[in-house]
Amino acid sequence: MSLVIVGSLALDTIETPKERKERIIGGSCSYAALAASYFTNPKIVAVIGEDFPAGIIDLFKQKGIDTRGVTKEYGKTFHWEGRYGSDPNQRTTIKTELNVFKDFKPRLPKDYCNTDILFLGNIDPDLQKDILSQARSPKLVAMDTINLWIENKPNSLLKVLEQVDVFFANDEEVKLIADEVNLIKAGNKLLKKGPSLMIIKKGEHGALLMGKDFVFGTLAYPCENVIDPTGAGDSFGGGFLGYLDKVNSFKEADIRKAAVYGSVMASFTIEDFSIERIKSLGAEEIDSRFNEFKKLVTF
Amino acid sequence: MSLVIVGSLALDTIETPKERKERIIGGSCSYAALAASYFTNPKIVAVIGEDFPAGIIDLFKQKGIDTRGVTKEYGKTFHWEGRYGSDPNQRTTIKTELNVFKDFKPRLPKDYCNTDILFLGNIDPDLQKDILSQARSPKLVAMDTINLWIENKPNSLLKVLEQVDVFFANDEEVKLIADEVNLIKAGNKLLKKGPSLMIIKKGEHGALLMGKDFVFGTLAYPCENVIDPTGAGDSFGGGFLGYLDKVNSFKEADIRKAAVYGSVMASFTIEDFSIERIKSLGAEEIDSRFNEFKKLVTF
Repeated sequence: MSLVIVGSLALDTIETPKERKERIIGGSCSYAALAASYFTNPKIVAVIGEDFPAGIIDLFKQKGIDTRGVTKEYGKTFHWEGRYGSDPNQRTTIKTELNVFKDFKPRLPKDYCNTDILFLGNIDPDLQKDILSQARSPKLVAMDTINLWIENKPNSLLKVLEQVDVFFANDEEVKLIADEVNLIKAGNKLLKKGPSLMIIKKGEHGALLMGKDFVFGTLAYPCENVIDPTGAGDSFGGGFLGYLDKVNSFKEADIRKAAVYGSVMASFTIEDFSIERIKSLGAEEIDSRFNEFKKLVTF
Repeated sequence: MSLVIVGSLALDTIETPKERKERIIGGSCSYAALAASYFTNPKIVAVIGEDFPAGIIDLFKQKGIDTRGVTKEYGKTFHWEGRYGSDPNQRTTIKTELNVFKDFKPRLPKDYCNTDILFLGNIDPDLQKDILSQARSPKLVAMDTINLWIENKPNSLLKVLEQVDVFFANDEEVKLIADEVNLIKAGNKLLKKGPSLMIIKKGEHGALLMGKDFVFGTLAYPCENVIDPTGAGDSFGGGFLGYLDKVNSFKEADIRKAAVYGSVMASFTIEDFSIERIKSLGAEEIDSRFNEFKKLVTF
């Protein structure tokens, strides 16, 4: 099968209580594509500025990522600056410089249009809708979002939601969109608005999958040293969809396994800054962690 | 084996956004004993006032609970009044009237002293320590606590902690006692202070068990209608210890199963006010829910 990922390639400045890292590689597309690359050969659509390191595009290519959908524009790459408190669940955005991302009008290259799976990473819902109209007849469409769009473009967001199969959001976002404090009720409410699968990301509490007729949960990996949580959700999405693309199946049993692989990829991402940990994993460490996730819940 | 539960028998006034219930049966001992009664015949130690309904003591007896450790004093039963917001995780204490609980000096009846398992429900840690000294040589001691004691009697609490095997606490409490924001680090820190097993209750996110050489997690049951969350944690504790008492084993495999039975009992408790749901369960519904918990995490 095939997987197209649309999102951001960014330079992030990250501050944690212990360290500050300037202009390191970030963006939903970086994390999702690298996570997916361990299962399939994702094609990516994104925009970069002149300051984006060429070496990273080379790295993507080495990992089997199709980068023909990456356009380079005059100007600077999208830059996000954030700070984590001593509790890594607490994140403050210090600065968002859209730069070349401001006028990003993502175009799917011709041979991307027949993709089987389309992952609409977190960008403006109007752009997500536009990309969706460029894809011919994807078997599965997934979308991600953030608070910003829920608050500023709720109607656009709901329109995209109508057309997607899988909706990734964190628990607060799900409650916010559904206007409902009970997470299960909120999830069920959104299942009536389009998607057939809700993937609710809960940070250190794992993820909850709500389908039309099943509920499945994964735990987060018990990690003592969360270095940088940035990209955990995107890595989850990439691992999840990459696995489904690999096994060429959307059956419940495979969706469950895909969610665990998503959790596995997220668990690696947070063990270091940026893409450091996730850029060079071995198949054995992925399998070994998959088995650890099994042990976590076996009774 | 045998299980002694020390805790409170109370009358609760509970307000939720939809309803207000006055002086309904509550207290850690009520929930824990009823939950345990589906697995074993727990013995309870608690104090009641003249206003505690005799019918409830009869109900306990019918459920095989040994109530010889319940003393009745002149005056009123411990009364707690609380309010839940539209988010049932938000609880506000409106009133705490200790009444007969104020001078409660729990004494283990003679033939309770040889108990195999001792559950020190959430009461003053000095009382917990006193009870502990009355037990001859329990094979397993478990304790529960709340913020009140962590903030007001931290040293007493740490002293009891040194002597117990299992420590039940919610995630905020664990972080507070350990003075550490990473839950896994916090749990490991407390594992060095006495207990060989931490049971971290996380409400709608389930529970995390941290042993010396394993981590195990259960999800919360995906419940659309949380009527009254009071007693969920106590029911977890009762179900957990009741199951261990029944199977007469503290092996890791049984501890994992016990935690799921604890989650099962908690999931029933929150489906109605007070002990309404948990007072008359059938073996089949317990088993059936146990299997649902399995499906929730199977991959």
